[in-house]
Amino acid sequence: MTPDEFRAAGRDLVDWIADYVEGVEQHRVTPAVVPGEVRSWLPAQPPTDVESWAAVRADVDHVILPGIAHWQHPSFFAYFPSNTTYPSILGELLTAGLGVQGMSWVTSPACTELETLMLDWMAQLLDLPERFASTSATGGGVIHGSASEATLCAILAARWRASGGRVNADGDTSRLVAYATSQAHSSIEKGLRIAGIGTDRIRLVPHDVELAMRPDALDALMAADRAAGLVPCIVVTTHGTTSSMAFDPTAAVAPIAAAHGAWLHADAAMSGVAALAPEQRWVNDGLDAADSYCTNPHKWMGVNFDCDLFWTADRVALLGALSILPEYLRSTAAEAGAVIDYRDWQVPLGRRFRSLKLWFTLRLEGVAAIQAMIRRHIELTQDLAALVAADERFEIVAPHPLNLLCLRLRAGDEATDALVEAANATGTALFTRTVLDGRSVLRASIGARATEARHVETAWRLLQSLAD
Amino acid sequence: MTPDEFRAAGRDLVDWIADYVEGVEQHRVTPAVVPGEVRSWLPAQPPTDVESWAAVRADVDHVILPGIAHWQHPSFFAYFPSNTTYPSILGELLTAGLGVQGMSWVTSPACTELETLMLDWMAQLLDLPERFASTSATGGGVIHGSASEATLCAILAARWRASGGRVNADGDTSRLVAYATSQAHSSIEKGLRIAGIGTDRIRLVPHDVELAMRPDALDALMAADRAAGLVPCIVVTTHGTTSSMAFDPTAAVAPIAAAHGAWLHADAAMSGVAALAPEQRWVNDGLDAADSYCTNPHKWMGVNFDCDLFWTADRVALLGALSILPEYLRSTAAEAGAVIDYRDWQVPLGRRFRSLKLWFTLRLEGVAAIQAMIRRHIELTQDLAALVAADERFEIVAPHPLNLLCLRLRAGDEATDALVEAANATGTALFTRTVLDGRSVLRASIGARATEARHVETAWRLLQSLAD
Repeated sequence: MTPDEFRAAGRDLVDWIADYVEGVEQHRVTPAVVPGEVRSWLPAQPPTDVESWAAVRADVDHVILPGIAHWQHPSFFAYFPSNTTYPSILGELLTAGLGVQGMSWVTSPACTELETLMLDWMAQLLDLPERFASTSATGGGVIHGSASEATLCAILAARWRASGGRVNADGDTSRLVAYATSQAHSSIEKGLRIAGIGTDRIRLVPHDVELAMRPDALDALMAADRAAGLVPCIVVTTHGTTSSMAFDPTAAVAPIAAAHGAWLHADAAMSGVAALAPEQRWVNDGLDAADSYCTNPHKWMGVNFDCDLFWTADRVALLGALSILPEYLRSTAAEAGAVIDYRDWQVPLGRRFRSLKLWFTLRLEGVAAIQAMIRRHIELTQDLAALVAADERFEIVAPHPLNLLCLRLRAGDEATDALVEAANATGTALFTRTVLDGRSVLRASIGARATEARHVETAWRLLQSLAD
Repeated sequence: MTPDEFRAAGRDLVDWIADYVEGVEQHRVTPAVVPGEVRSWLPAQPPTDVESWAAVRADVDHVILPGIAHWQHPSFFAYFPSNTTYPSILGELLTAGLGVQGMSWVTSPACTELETLMLDWMAQLLDLPERFASTSATGGGVIHGSASEATLCAILAARWRASGGRVNADGDTSRLVAYATSQAHSSIEKGLRIAGIGTDRIRLVPHDVELAMRPDALDALMAADRAAGLVPCIVVTTHGTTSSMAFDPTAAVAPIAAAHGAWLHADAAMSGVAALAPEQRWVNDGLDAADSYCTNPHKWMGVNFDCDLFWTADRVALLGALSILPEYLRSTAAEAGAVIDYRDWQVPLGRRFRSLKLWFTLRLEGVAAIQAMIRRHIELTQDLAALVAADERFEIVAPHPLNLLCLRLRAGDEATDALVEAANATGTALFTRTVLDGRSVLRASIGARATEARHVETAWRLLQSLAD
């Protein structure tokens, strides 16, 4: 492809994206395809000749669009918000165009230094404890691809610290124990398994009626494990669980974790960025004694996936767990301790220049616009809650302080399951089914940038009409 | 940012990128900045007001560009190729614009199905064994962010198989042993550590004079470990090592790994895509009995980082190691076994629509153009080798079948170290220093898309002038 062809196709694609984003409502939320159908529309063999942009663009319209779920759709109420903003798209475009590798400071100083600055900016905007700032004694932050990866790194740091660093050599995880509630994200269990802490040594800490961790129960479990000769390694609290947006009491958990010698990681992947609105800063309560914390601008802040922010107050343990230095990666700057090499803060070696999209979003979209969006979503959720509460066929089954509402039909599990299925089958809205304390639940997550009151009202009328 | 502002800024940025790529040669290869300098050019506090695209663009020119190493520079001979093509940049732009999540088939069928098709296309183009195809009994492929992550997944699958699946519950890795040479990439050791196979149980298999694994030595190590009651878990061979592009004899290693019950992973991150040129298909020799294999289009094929391709012949073990299914991720299609849920093929849950950039590159750049680029780089490397061989001050220290040349000054380690440092300090070219068998070496990796004969010749004259 020549530079001029790129200029022409690029301009066309920019327009295509603006048309797509502005017109996304015209699509079904989910595609009407069966397994294998998209593939059947494409050639089984790779092309032997160069094709035109027009041909590729036509396939984007006729093969890709009919095959995707539209996460930017204003009636997308499923899973979690994964919204995007125009500045973030520009940031991704620049990342691709520069094509630099940020594995070490020396492989692109601006990539490392902008990222460190963005983490410090975000720590200020979220009002996080000073101990997470890059300027603190042993703290600092990094962009991960996902909270799953951030959690895994927290686990590895915890494992390193609990073993006095010996785990790198002996691989001995046999006495380590981890703690979280049944409401913690599946990535916690997955990360623990990966790190050699199998499900036999993951304690599901009992929760209270609001699905939040019970500190007394945690204390009892940790004491029993220590009495049995085991080593508490990590406690993971969640600030906004996936199923119901429950908040574990990190402030009350922290002294217990500390007393038993365990790392405390607070997972606020879905909800932590709500603290961009000062009145919502309670979502991050209790972090003063946490060892690490993560939240995802790629969920509810309009920064494209992938952008998880991870902070730790103990980078010594993190680096102890993850750094490895072959000859071909040595640099004078790194050996002088003057710089951060982010490859040692993550599992992979390579890394993209992801801070650009965060920088672009904060400057070109602006914090005020993001705050307004977050506030609108919270308000829409509370409005929906009022509607649901007024219909005696439905019940709300969990607290809903932010933008997730969990509801069910009083008629029972089967009726609720059927409701989710019927609503999603219309293609006009998308919800997620979950199970809370053994009961089927419909989750309505309100977080797409384009979602307005009329979309929520239409979705509610749909649920009402299907409830009979 | 309004849609119209996005259209205008997007068009401007597309032109900016074309100007950057075409004019990259005017920059120093590496920036002349000291630690902290880039950050000092930026405000310590986040912006309180929305800024203009013009202001952000100016900072890209005056803060970012002076702070990056230009990986697309034709005189970038360091590390590994990380080249990009215009179609790949368009692919990334579309990925960002669509903003879909590919964690499950149901969360965007086209994302999953295009990815599976691209892996099948690439398997054909690289002439990989049929057992890796998605249509085979237990094989299939996936896009990972990096070879580090692919390797970790291979290790986890191996660990699962070696333990009969018990490791997920008991976390017991105490008897597992891994095997690779000292030339294997650092991510192998890092991945093993993460999986609870510490350095005490990583055997460095002796290599021959060409730095390739010695099968007889591997056999002896594995037999000794089994005799000691240990369990050989995984052997990692490398097709193109990072330091010197050595090739381990996978064909000879395979029966030994199999006889001792270990998984065999072939890591061709840097060099595997050379097989796009049919005369270079030898780079993937021996895969017929490998359990898994990976190579990186984001290295030498012009697809933007991140794009690692990973294939396995045993997806049962891979899924056994990595799948986890909370209620909120269940789907009818997945439970019927009709679809692939790629979240179970990787560590993170979330995933971008990365196959678009591969699809765009294959269609809009074309295989013939990529083959031509690969052939040109190999030819330039052989031409450089001839020049080096003709200068008695230098010696070539490793085989150089592809696009990496390892050389040193006969004057010794200090002289060679000084040469690398002096050459890089000019900012007109960038090389990497490594150590092979205890001796300092300058690596010249020729793989940028813009590199022509004149760039290699200029770099060689630089080395000659500094050699005195």
